[in-house]
Amino acid sequence: MATSDIDILICEVGLRDGLQNAIGIMPTNVKKEWIEGLVASGIKEIEACSFVSSKFIKGMEDADEIVSFASAFNKITVAALAPNLFGVKNAMRAGVAKISLPVSVSEAHSHANVKKSRTEMITEVRLACEYRDSVERPLRPLVEVGLSTAFGCGISGKIPEYETIKTAVQCVSAGVDGITLSDTSGIGNPAQVKSLFKAVKKEVGELLSGVHLHNTYGLGLANAYAAIEAGATTLDSSLGGLGGCPFAPGAAGNIVTEDLVFMLEQQGLRTGIDLNKLLKCRDIVKRGLPTDNLYGYLAGAGIPKYF
Amino acid sequence: MATSDIDILICEVGLRDGLQNAIGIMPTNVKKEWIEGLVASGIKEIEACSFVSSKFIKGMEDADEIVSFASAFNKITVAALAPNLFGVKNAMRAGVAKISLPVSVSEAHSHANVKKSRTEMITEVRLACEYRDSVERPLRPLVEVGLSTAFGCGISGKIPEYETIKTAVQCVSAGVDGITLSDTSGIGNPAQVKSLFKAVKKEVGELLSGVHLHNTYGLGLANAYAAIEAGATTLDSSLGGLGGCPFAPGAAGNIVTEDLVFMLEQQGLRTGIDLNKLLKCRDIVKRGLPTDNLYGYLAGAGIPKYF
Repeated sequence: MATSDIDILICEVGLRDGLQNAIGIMPTNVKKEWIEGLVASGIKEIEACSFVSSKFIKGMEDADEIVSFASAFNKITVAALAPNLFGVKNAMRAGVAKISLPVSVSEAHSHANVKKSRTEMITEVRLACEYRDSVERPLRPLVEVGLSTAFGCGISGKIPEYETIKTAVQCVSAGVDGITLSDTSGIGNPAQVKSLFKAVKKEVGELLSGVHLHNTYGLGLANAYAAIEAGATTLDSSLGGLGGCPFAPGAAGNIVTEDLVFMLEQQGLRTGIDLNKLLKCRDIVKRGLPTDNLYGYLAGAGIPKYF
Repeated sequence: MATSDIDILICEVGLRDGLQNAIGIMPTNVKKEWIEGLVASGIKEIEACSFVSSKFIKGMEDADEIVSFASAFNKITVAALAPNLFGVKNAMRAGVAKISLPVSVSEAHSHANVKKSRTEMITEVRLACEYRDSVERPLRPLVEVGLSTAFGCGISGKIPEYETIKTAVQCVSAGVDGITLSDTSGIGNPAQVKSLFKAVKKEVGELLSGVHLHNTYGLGLANAYAAIEAGATTLDSSLGGLGGCPFAPGAAGNIVTEDLVFMLEQQGLRTGIDLNKLLKCRDIVKRGLPTDNLYGYLAGAGIPKYF
């Protein structure tokens, strides 16, 4: 991955966060077309699936096949979500380059999302890191944590800054390769995003690289801008703004990849992504999810002629 | 107007910018209900109408009656748009407290919007200021300028920063009481908004107080946040995101008042506006414009219980 050619790394999470919360189930062959389209557009990283029980989440039964398909391109980092050690083992067996475990700062969301307390989940992260270390390079993946409800919780309300900082530090002690701050319910505001990102960065340094934002209240791109102002270099987003969290009340879709790319490129920040090719992926997604709504402003307004 | 109780002044422009670009024509009695609802919600300033020829813009024939109705509340500043000296005279006769003249930085948009060159329009502003000065206080209104296409033009593309700065300085020389930077086509990005706001502020000081933003590419609230970071204290917005510019290709609605208030209040910036009461105004607007779409995220997601 030639990160020196870009200023901001966008991780497309539509295939995981988006599909996990879609009304429809996208057929495997359409997922593959979508991945092809993303690679053609210049996307550098995708979260391709989650390694979860199909009892709780539908539509991820083809995770192995999708990881294998995406990894063959060699041009993208293939990431996946795993909620526990069992999932981590499956993800590693499938050959992902990066695994993200969700650790909720909010106890209430932790129980709702992973059926574990925050402390139990950090233990799970520690076990995942130990398991990672038992694997020889170059097959050893990165193990990262997404700090869910970092900016507030749809169940329990406000989350004090120090709780998020404390949880981040505990994850670092557990041995993670990276941390992302997740605004699971889309409740964060730009001033808060800037403040918290800086505060966590001060404690964990370069291990904090990015944010995962939702657009529940329409503040997603404002929060993205604020995060970048605070030093974020990696942003998760989802084509057409698909996404949400089935276990977080009120959570709506992720920030829209194409609108985010437009904002960043207009600001002179290089993403390495071709917007015309990216917009074409919307047709693939529409075909694969005919009953879901796609969001975003750029698709409707069109790329300005002087872009 | 007790501006000491608030941090950010929101000027609701839905009755002007919104209605000027709506599909439907809102009946006068519904406009009055809307104004009542806005006053009840704590809005401190409204742009109530424009004083334009009904040959070009429909639905503003009741401007005198609306200004008279709104002014009776004594709790709000009643502003209006006027594209020329003729409109300024009518606005003053109707009794508005503030008049905004649109001056396009882009020559192409200037001709399309007001059928005058930029230089001719600045002359019009000078005449308006002279006319203002001929009126005794306290009846003398403020004469302000909205710098259209300050961040880019839907017709001619990019606008160099120095053109916007130069135009702002010329308007100050013409005698205006205030300047607003308008992102007429919604093409501005947050880094640009921050940079340009600071650059213009450096030249004209406190005469620059605010921004008028559109949400064509979904960057409206990110741009609002950036403007506030740069020192803006006044923001125009429109209930339900109504608005646009009939003479600016691709221009979509204004930033959504209720989402903006939510963002600001979440950031701890006081607007003096009661969000529950503001949201109720949407029903009035829907009734008055049954065929128009209202935008906004807060209305769909609902005010979080811990707001």
